[in-house]
Amino acid sequence: MDNFTFHNPTKILFGRGMENEVGAETARYSHRVLLHFGGGSIKKSGLYDRVVASLKKAGVEWVELGGVKPNPRLGLVHEGVRLCRERGLDFVLAVGGGSAIDSAKGVAMGAANNGEVWDFYARKRKPTRALPVGTVLTIPATGSEASTASVVTNEDGWIKRGFNSELIYPKFSVLNPELAFTLPPFQAACGAADILSHLMERYFTNTRNVAFVDRLLEATMKTVIAQAPKVLAKPTDYDAWAELMWAGTIAHNNLLNTGRLGDWGSHDIEHEISAIYDVAHGAGLAVVLPAWTKHVLDHDVDRFVQWAVRVWDVELDIFDREATARAGIARLEAFFHSIGLGTTLAALKIGADRIDEMARKCTEGDTRVVGHFVKLDTAQVAKILRLAA
Amino acid sequence: MDNFTFHNPTKILFGRGMENEVGAETARYSHRVLLHFGGGSIKKSGLYDRVVASLKKAGVEWVELGGVKPNPRLGLVHEGVRLCRERGLDFVLAVGGGSAIDSAKGVAMGAANNGEVWDFYARKRKPTRALPVGTVLTIPATGSEASTASVVTNEDGWIKRGFNSELIYPKFSVLNPELAFTLPPFQAACGAADILSHLMERYFTNTRNVAFVDRLLEATMKTVIAQAPKVLAKPTDYDAWAELMWAGTIAHNNLLNTGRLGDWGSHDIEHEISAIYDVAHGAGLAVVLPAWTKHVLDHDVDRFVQWAVRVWDVELDIFDREATARAGIARLEAFFHSIGLGTTLAALKIGADRIDEMARKCTEGDTRVVGHFVKLDTAQVAKILRLAA
Repeated sequence: MDNFTFHNPTKILFGRGMENEVGAETARYSHRVLLHFGGGSIKKSGLYDRVVASLKKAGVEWVELGGVKPNPRLGLVHEGVRLCRERGLDFVLAVGGGSAIDSAKGVAMGAANNGEVWDFYARKRKPTRALPVGTVLTIPATGSEASTASVVTNEDGWIKRGFNSELIYPKFSVLNPELAFTLPPFQAACGAADILSHLMERYFTNTRNVAFVDRLLEATMKTVIAQAPKVLAKPTDYDAWAELMWAGTIAHNNLLNTGRLGDWGSHDIEHEISAIYDVAHGAGLAVVLPAWTKHVLDHDVDRFVQWAVRVWDVELDIFDREATARAGIARLEAFFHSIGLGTTLAALKIGADRIDEMARKCTEGDTRVVGHFVKLDTAQVAKILRLAA
Repeated sequence: MDNFTFHNPTKILFGRGMENEVGAETARYSHRVLLHFGGGSIKKSGLYDRVVASLKKAGVEWVELGGVKPNPRLGLVHEGVRLCRERGLDFVLAVGGGSAIDSAKGVAMGAANNGEVWDFYARKRKPTRALPVGTVLTIPATGSEASTASVVTNEDGWIKRGFNSELIYPKFSVLNPELAFTLPPFQAACGAADILSHLMERYFTNTRNVAFVDRLLEATMKTVIAQAPKVLAKPTDYDAWAELMWAGTIAHNNLLNTGRLGDWGSHDIEHEISAIYDVAHGAGLAVVLPAWTKHVLDHDVDRFVQWAVRVWDVELDIFDREATARAGIARLEAFFHSIGLGTTLAALKIGADRIDEMARKCTEGDTRVVGHFVKLDTAQVAKILRLAA
């Protein structure tokens, strides 16, 4: 186990009706906030009305900025920064899924620091502060509601980059499983794939003596695998959504990477796919992950065996460990298919013609570290994408 | 799953050498602190020297109060409160195990509020503030290093009572597994029993649809069961201590009771044993827990079956679920024996003569709720203690 510090101060308000607490929670930090969200779904569902009623009751004024898209864009982050500065807003309240939250985190950094906010995503410099952020989550997926992460796409070159800082842990997040009832099945499935990917990225590590967190990761993976089919079968299954939503938060709140270095190569590869083709992040991950596992299997067969046996209930064949591991990978693919996700680029209607371009951008011509479990160069990324074709 | 709020802001600094950060971490809050600890072990081990060197380097002044005993006493808490007030100390730094930390939390509440601090433990009134507390943990056991809990014994009547408040989450806790290398085997075993008890108290619940946290609890129980024998076999096994120490913190930091109501009857019963006989808390729990499981088994056999199969690797006999459950209980007893703990009052050299007195004090003559999975009256507590005789 590696030395680590763990400090996650995000307050979670979980359960039915908890969005009605958002005004009181926000008022602890600010009475002038940017209310940031995506399209019209929160207005259709009535969530918008409940949130603004709660803000009004707590004496919190707000300025609205809707229009966040999946794979949130830098342009809208700039717009949010401008609004915060011009209107004197000092808190960002995101209502929606990971895209709204990631965009809000970008605004929070951009408004609190001078200069261009993209510099942080491009690793050119670090922020020294951020406006406080709060969230009302509607999609279990990215874990952004209790994470240090924000992922934004720069329209100039369609570059998608993630950034991590303890400055952007939300102060609070409201998690009401009912808010996910109206999610289209495809989005629900993409969310589950994203959660599973966060767990796999952490699970596949070269760090030794990480037995406890291995088991926590396995427990959380088993939960996603058990609950995702239930919410697809019955979108109003509160109990299944509750398990999936809480698992999604824990998957990415930094607890499950304590003492270990995860991989994250699959995320970097997927970002190249969704930056160019604007596919849903989870859909892209369902394509990359199986190909990635096949490519790196030889690196540590026993870790894949443990994963296959404990997570996927594969019977151990001690005399053919590789077959045991491959059976786990087959069950991963079958799981994605069972929740309606394809596992090939072709299934996303993406051809092989830009694979080399994606591989080059991902590794920035071999100058960027992609993957820690197995470090991938440009040729390896291209090979994984061809395996996924 | 029940609605819940979860908010644990304790910063964890985990690993080798982390105690050298204690000065810098403390200086974020205070430059005049009470340094609170137990006996001479931290001086013998050199930990004391490293802590005060770190404080000095950060310009933090301190006043010392040693002498915390297992089952920490109200008298010493009063002494700490007096020192904080008279010497103008506004931070309490505990160095030691759960007793030093629980005592420090008592001091932190007593010094920040007017009136008698025992009132909080006796549920007569609630504190409105507390001095900030930091800890350097030397014994994985109580989880107090990241919990809302403090347990103190009032010498007037030998009443042992626990108190919970978010006010007393430590601001930071240093967890260096090396600090546990010098623990006597009996104390190491008692710590493991305490951790396992925190997990069992949470596991046995009447709340339905708690599958995710069930799995996290099972993962943590399996870790304790796997790692405790290793630290007893080789007290300098860093990796095993690291797993056990981190599991001990997660077992009791409130994550694993999200969305569910645990039992806690065994803790209440054990407090009566250790209040009178001053036995180690973990040793008392190893006596109470098996008796408690046998007494409440009928209440929800299937929950015991799940526990036996998943935690203790008992093979499911679907045609005899009770036998499956009882095999789990037998393995619990065998585990305690394997780490050198007795599972009867007789093994602690405690007779049956004061069982009725303990049962009465525990339930305060049936006016106090003891247990949530199964609510226990005075007669039932006495029956459990007789089962344990």
